[in-house]
Amino acid sequence: MKSVTPGPWFRHCLRVRYQETDQMGVVYHANYLNWFEIGRTELIRQMGFPYTDIEAKGFLLPVIHAEIDFHKPAKYDDVVMIYTRIESYTNVRIEMGCQVHRADPEQISDVESAVESGFEPSGELLVRGLTRHVWVNRDFRPVRIDQELPELFAVFQSCKK
Amino acid sequence: MKSVTPGPWFRHCLRVRYQETDQMGVVYHANYLNWFEIGRTELIRQMGFPYTDIEAKGFLLPVIHAEIDFHKPAKYDDVVMIYTRIESYTNVRIEMGCQVHRADPEQISDVESAVESGFEPSGELLVRGLTRHVWVNRDFRPVRIDQELPELFAVFQSCKK
Amino acid sequence: MKSVTPGPWFRHCLRVRYQETDQMGVVYHANYLNWFEIGRTELIRQMGFPYTDIEAKGFLLPVIHAEIDFHKPAKYDDVVMIYTRIESYTNVRIEMGCQVHRADPEQISDVESAVESGFEPSGELLVRGLTRHVWVNRDFRPVRIDQELPELFAVFQSCKK
Amino acid sequence: MKSVTPGPWFRHCLRVRYQETDQMGVVYHANYLNWFEIGRTELIRQMGFPYTDIEAKGFLLPVIHAEIDFHKPAKYDDVVMIYTRIESYTNVRIEMGCQVHRADPEQISDVESAVESGFEPSGELLVRGLTRHVWVNRDFRPVRIDQELPELFAVFQSCKK
Repeated sequence: MKSVTPGPWFRHCLRVRYQETDQMGVVYHANYLNWFEIGRTELIRQMGFPYTDIEAKGFLLPVIHAEIDFHKPAKYDDVVMIYTRIESYTNVRIEMGCQVHRADPEQISDVESAVESGFEPSGELLVRGLTRHVWVNRDFRPVRIDQELPELFAVFQSCKK
Repeated sequence: MKSVTPGPWFRHCLRVRYQETDQMGVVYHANYLNWFEIGRTELIRQMGFPYTDIEAKGFLLPVIHAEIDFHKPAKYDDVVMIYTRIESYTNVRIEMGCQVHRADPEQISDVESAVESGFEPSGELLVRGLTRHVWVNRDFRPVRIDQELPELFAVFQSCKK
Repeated sequence: MKSVTPGPWFRHCLRVRYQETDQMGVVYHANYLNWFEIGRTELIRQMGFPYTDIEAKGFLLPVIHAEIDFHKPAKYDDVVMIYTRIESYTNVRIEMGCQVHRADPEQISDVESAVESGFEPSGELLVRGLTRHVWVNRDFRPVRIDQELPELFAVFQSCKK
Repeated sequence: MKSVTPGPWFRHCLRVRYQETDQMGVVYHANYLNWFEIGRTELIRQMGFPYTDIEAKGFLLPVIHAEIDFHKPAKYDDVVMIYTRIESYTNVRIEMGCQVHRADPEQISDVESAVESGFEPSGELLVRGLTRHVWVNRDFRPVRIDQELPELFAVFQSCKK
């Protein structure tokens, strides 16, 4: 079973931290992987399944592959919008797409932490990437998520309409 | 010139990131220093002086001393409230107090990124600390902030009433 | 002008830090990008051009693309060997390959910080990746490195024999 | 039972990473807490008890208090020497002192990862601090280390002579 039509974009807003900069005066590149993860976390929370609950049930979703294109650097104190969507999934894997855009500072009061879906990415594109994940148990052995967490799998299916 | 009456508490809310945890299953202790800084940044923004503007004018506020008491650990996905206030200041230095409390997850929709003042710390106390800073220029030489940025200094004075 | 024959592998050893772990009990995935960079830094130092000197001359080498395959996780206190090589380069770009292997703990006393070349990767493969970079000046405008730093470019050429 | 005579200094060498810098062009202050921990880890390894073994036996040593004085900033690619010693200890707590000095770059080939004891701190002092810890089990409940790990406690006693 495989779905390959991308789902809708979810968005989440955050402000760049001083610690995230380096002496080039821009955000250190490894931090975007961290932001991608925050985007996924908020997408999955919005879908009704906090990742903490999934972990509490004994399932993990480690990253097995990542690709990142760095277009322009984010800077300290920038407000950035992280757009995340499900690109494709099967019973055992999932692939997520992510785009980071510079946002209007005014937006942060509206949307920080409020993930919403159905928005097309807008604003200056900074970074674009995708991550591939496999569902595993606590022993890092692959599991079939449609069998282990069918209610979560059902949400993926409905989300991808 | 020295003021030693603490100012009002400002508060800022954030959600614990996965990257901030370590294999003890709690937030790695060095991250609280990062959160203290976020608290200071948002306090100073709320006072009308984004730290980016201060840096753009050529002034930096490095930490020269920090003390931290770790009471209880924050955990992944916790919503924490960072309370920050000015403890004391002179023409050349400033001391900030900080408390991190575990917050009600409901609070994040209300207040993330919205720093407000006049709130007494509430919720479960996790970490308490203070940081001491000195005003310097780009060459890391001390400056008198009452002379260099009198409008900022005036805000400190009014805030501490 | 383009060279597409990979150069020799350089290796550098490091020990996994507690802070680099997360609550999954393994190294947080974004840290591998940081290790890739350490590998590049030590390769370029070994070639006789400390990256600090290159920055001091006004040139930067930001990452414009990265790909990472995560095979097995590194764990706290593991000794890992980072293998790095130049995959290809032109006058304006460079592509680096990287492999992280779990090493024998005994190896750290021999080789930490001692980058050596001519070793084929060995030990358990953990992560493999590549990064693409472009030479820019302080204003983030592309530069031709064969014109700006011909002595560095000459080293690339000799290294790729 | 309490010992309050400081033990000998142990030293460990490391090179500053690009990621550890911020846009001030120096090491971000929270990283020193991370380096303090690396110093403790290497001290305890040198004493014959890798911290991984202690954790494997079910004991943790979280930080309950930290104090840091920042004298001068470390910079990218600096070789720094971390000096660590036991300041005092009881059956349930331990206090560690730490100093970070800028080292001669030549030193890294000799001593990185080779912790040695009996050296007095030398070189330019950058940061000085102390951390207080309590021994706990996996449930974060305090334990008496002299009863739980008497062989480790014996080493503390012999080390403090």
